[in-house]
Amino acid sequence: MLTRIDHVGIAVTDLDAAIERYTATFGLRLVATETNADQGVREAMLALGEVTSIGADDAAAPSYVQLLEPLASDTPVGRFLARRGEGLHHVGYAVTDINAALESLAAQGVQLIDAQPRHGSLGASIAFVHPRDLFGVLTELVQAARG
Amino acid sequence: MLTRIDHVGIAVTDLDAAIERYTATFGLRLVATETNADQGVREAMLALGEVTSIGADDAAAPSYVQLLEPLASDTPVGRFLARRGEGLHHVGYAVTDINAALESLAAQGVQLIDAQPRHGSLGASIAFVHPRDLFGVLTELVQAARG
Repeated sequence: MLTRIDHVGIAVTDLDAAIERYTATFGLRLVATETNADQGVREAMLALGEVTSIGADDAAAPSYVQLLEPLASDTPVGRFLARRGEGLHHVGYAVTDINAALESLAAQGVQLIDAQPRHGSLGASIAFVHPRDLFGVLTELVQAARG
Repeated sequence: MLTRIDHVGIAVTDLDAAIERYTATFGLRLVATETNADQGVREAMLALGEVTSIGADDAAAPSYVQLLEPLASDTPVGRFLARRGEGLHHVGYAVTDINAALESLAAQGVQLIDAQPRHGSLGASIAFVHPRDLFGVLTELVQAARG
């Protein structure tokens, strides 16, 4: 079902400082910043390795570091920061068919946060799976937009 | 410097239950279990997607979910579980030259946990970077064994 790790999501208090660190120190490439009011974050996508096809779903698709700064303290990422401080927030896995993946998980009794896909970074369709059945790991499924 | 996400490390209390979940629910393939006394863990590596070359360093190298069960409560993963519960423990990024990467990070003043590479999963050379300078994220560099 899961074809690769699409991204890790990192909760930060200062998005610009984090972008600077990941680009200057690690050589990642900033490919997008966007505000996602639905999720209550300002975020940045930074690609690892050679970037040949942004947002595409193929073997050469890059993996990303996704930096998340909350828009307010009463958002999921804002509450995460208050509770645990900066750090790894979730992991996103690529799937080829997000509807089929959600159906399969629901049939196996895995608790979903999003029963239906919604809009994610870089035009992807995404859905979150509850950490309860996944050993405390907030897990995101990502079906990339076609290149 | 970082070419892709090699793995996410997940701290769990029951390794066998976690292996069952990730293989049965998500279709990941268990490629190795090993005890790493140095790191105080029993661990499993589960590959995502098609596995064509385990432990190799190439564009087709799979990414992994690494499940970590502590050997005792007074180990790093044991203390993590006591403090935060199960969940994302660290992220590992692939590098082509781990010595060059460590030199570059040290020169930039980034606090390292391992100044020299040590033995990691699947024959890789690995080194941990301190979360302090990386927004709370325990970060591992992974130079894969040659296939």
